[in-house]
Order: sequence, then structure tokens, then C-alpha cells
Amino acid sequence: MEQINNIQVVPCTSSNYLRPFRVHYNQNGTKKSWDFMQTHDSVSVLIFNTTSHCFILVKQFRPAVYMSEWERSKPKPLQPVEEESAEAAPAEPKVPEEDKAGETSEGTSSHQPPASAGVTYELCAGLVDKPNLSLEEIARQEVLEECGYDIPVTKLRKITSYRSGVGVTGSKQTMFYAEVSDENRVGEGGGKPQEGELIEVVKVPLHEAMTFAFDESIPKTMGVIFSFIWFHSNMSPKYKISTNV
Amino acid sequence: MEQINNIQVVPCTSSNYLRPFRVHYNQNGTKKSWDFMQTHDSVSVLIFNTTSHCFILVKQFRPAVYMSEWERSKPKPLQPVEEESAEAAPAEPKVPEEDKAGETSEGTSSHQPPASAGVTYELCAGLVDKPNLSLEEIARQEVLEECGYDIPVTKLRKITSYRSGVGVTGSKQTMFYAEVSDENRVGEGGGKPQEGELIEVVKVPLHEAMTFAFDESIPKTMGVIFSFIWFHSNMSPKYKISTNV
Repeated sequence: MEQINNIQVVPCTSSNYLRPFRVHYNQNGTKKSWDFMQTHDSVSVLIFNTTSHCFILVKQFRPAVYMSEWERSKPKPLQPVEEESAEAAPAEPKVPEEDKAGETSEGTSSHQPPASAGVTYELCAGLVDKPNLSLEEIARQEVLEECGYDIPVTKLRKITSYRSGVGVTGSKQTMFYAEVSDENRVGEGGGKPQEGELIEVVKVPLHEAMTFAFDESIPKTMGVIFSFIWFHSNMSPKYKISTNV
Repeated sequence: MEQINNIQVVPCTSSNYLRPFRVHYNQNGTKKSWDFMQTHDSVSVLIFNTTSHCFILVKQFRPAVYMSEWERSKPKPLQPVEEESAEAAPAEPKVPEEDKAGETSEGTSSHQPPASAGVTYELCAGLVDKPNLSLEEIARQEVLEECGYDIPVTKLRKITSYRSGVGVTGSKQTMFYAEVSDENRVGEGGGKPQEGELIEVVKVPLHEAMTFAFDESIPKTMGVIFSFIWFHSNMSPKYKISTNV
């Protein structure tokens, strides 16, 4: 169980991770503007363990999910920017008094949700930030680092690719499928602690997969749901899934 | 065919749409920080027209997708921020000389991709930004505004919900399914031009849906692919889909 406390939200005027730009352009003769962010493309992998007939997912605390959940439980937005002009300097985020209590009281504020509200189940995934590696090679590295399975690149089958965050980032995500066995397990996985990753490897048995996918009380990405239903449609004759959607 | 030209990228130091924050917190006793953005939750709707046996999608030019595509075709990033400290002021984005040509030459720069590279197919969708409306009511409004079908809220069936952008926004998306008929068509759709929306309503015939979904040359969101395969798994007995995934 994660212990999350001493939460403090501050303005973010410059970030190595969030890089906002504004593009001005003409669309069919009409002048327009759009704010967007540069991000890396990414890969994700649906991993199926053929020894235990389980899907291998990763589970981690996601600060953005947690803050979004917290925000939803509050009547008042962190920063009412609607009145700001686009030219105005960024305002200090207004942290309501009741939340300030939560910053120092080890998470006992009545408004602060439990840490579990920010823990999501996801496919093994990673950013495409190594220009000299193919998508498959990056996917293979993530399977090893996050989940502890060492498989050859040839075991990765592309499912498809699509656009994510079309309003903000528009980056391209490519999803792979990989079958692994207990013999491929060479480590614990868990990501790179030196880069702040604290990832738990989770097994979801095949016969529970569709129930898991559509259980909204379990926070997860669309990638998990989509890939499970893709497996159901494409692999079920081979592995005999009994549960219907 | 969209005409996109006079493209100019400028720094974005303050935005009504991208609101970056930094959260400091303790996870199991270890101090950590994370940059995130506040966004609204959203709804999306898979619309199936029972008169024509077509899915109703929307198609629009997405500046973020276009810039991501452009960036991918270039050897050099817009702004090398890796050397910046987190405290440094935002730098001017470096627009390479060859791209500056594209800004004034009506899109004739050899590096500038065609406008179609930024046009994506998506589910009818909208932000949850009206606190007095239910998710179903917001979804109903979007179906009317974007696609021109007037349906009662009771026709909306929830498929599921999930987390999007877990690294950056962590917002919650809820997906609905709605069956419409030609009799429900009361307008052209197309969004709100006064808010800059320029949306084209597109029909995808049922028998072409799975081929469309997995054709990677057609830029689309995962929502389109997931909802088509969901329909395939859940509605195919009713509507006899002949195409396999």
C-alpha cells in the first residue's frame, strides 16, 4: 500500500517534461492559433504469459491521476484561469485552506483521497526517446526493465498504432503483443528506481481479464481494455477464453 | 481538402488551455516531484446509424497532431530543453531556417507535411466543463452539435470509463454507445464554428469498420479502434458483421 503525504502544489513556469508552444496558422484562409505540447511518441506491450495464462501489467502511483481525482472531489478549481488573458503572467495557484492542512498533516485532510486513487493499471510501456533504436527494440527493453522478461525482438507482434492526446500532444503510440513464458523471466522488473520509477508487476489471469477490463472501480488506461478485448477477438480460439464481454 | 499555411510556432508562457503545475510529495518516505496539467474530464460516443448501418465519426484538423507529425519528419527538435535547469526561464523555441520558409511560402517547404497529416478520425466527443449537466447530457449535446442527431439521453449506453494521459493529465474519459436513425437527424452537425470548430461528419460502413480500424495509414484515436472492436464483440450477433479482425 502506497503512503502519499506532504503534498504541495506549486506553479510550474518551466519544465523539462511539459513544453508548451503556440502555433499560429491559416486554415482555409482563416487565421487560427492553438496551444500544444511537444512530447515523445511511445510504445506499449500487451504481455501474455503462456506458462501461467496470465496477462502481465504494471501498476504505479501516478501523480497526475491522483491530482485529477483530488480535483474532482473538490468544489473549487485550483486556479481559475478563465478570467486571465492569454498574455497575462501565470498566476500563483490558489490552494484552498482545507488542502493546505493536507500538506502537513500526513494526509489526514478530509478532502485528500487515499493514495490508491492515483494507482493505475497499465500496459508495460515506454517513450520513444532513443533515436538509434527501433520501436521493437525500445519495447523489448521496457518488457525487460519493467516486467523482468527477456525476449527477442522477433517475439513482438505489432497490434496497431494510433494518435493520443489529439488536442494537446498528438503523439503516436504503437502497441505490440508479446507472448512470454516463465523461462523468459530473468529478473523482478520494477523499472529504474534511479529514475524515480516504482513499478509493481501485476498478473491478471486470463479467465478474469474481461471482468477486470470493464470493472470501472479499478483505475486503468484504455490500452489495457482495448488490448484485452483485442486478445479476446484474436487469440480466444487458441487460448479458450470462457468469459464474455 | 484542408489548406494549412503561414505556420508560425512561438513560445507559450501562459495559456488558457495548458495549465502546468508541479506537485511535491512524499511516497513511502521518499521526496518526489511531478509536473502535470489540469484538464477537464471528457466523454466520447460511438454512434451507430441503424438506417444506413454506418458508424458516425468526426474528422478534423488537429494542430497538435500536425506539429507532432512535422516534428517526426525533422532531424532536430524545436527546442532542446534537456540542458535547461528546472528553474530556468522558458527559452525561445528555435525554428530551423528551413521551416521559416514554410511559414510564408504557402506550405511549399519541403519539410512541411501535407495538411492531411494532421487530420484525424475520432469519436464524437467533448469536455466535461458544465458542472450542472450529467455526463449523459453532455454526450447528448455533443452528438447534436457535432453530428446533427437529436437523441434522448436514455439512448446513451455507457461502455466504460478509463484514465487518459496518465503521465500528464490523468483525466477520466467515459465512453458511450448510441444508436441513431436517419429520423433523428435534425442538422448538419459540424461543431460550433464560433468556437473555432471545423468538424466534418464521416460515415464508416459497418462492413468496412474493422479494416478501417486497423489501417494505420488513416490517423485515428484509440477510442475509434477500441469502440469498433467492442461493437464487433458485443453487437455483431445483432448486426451480423462479416469482417474478422
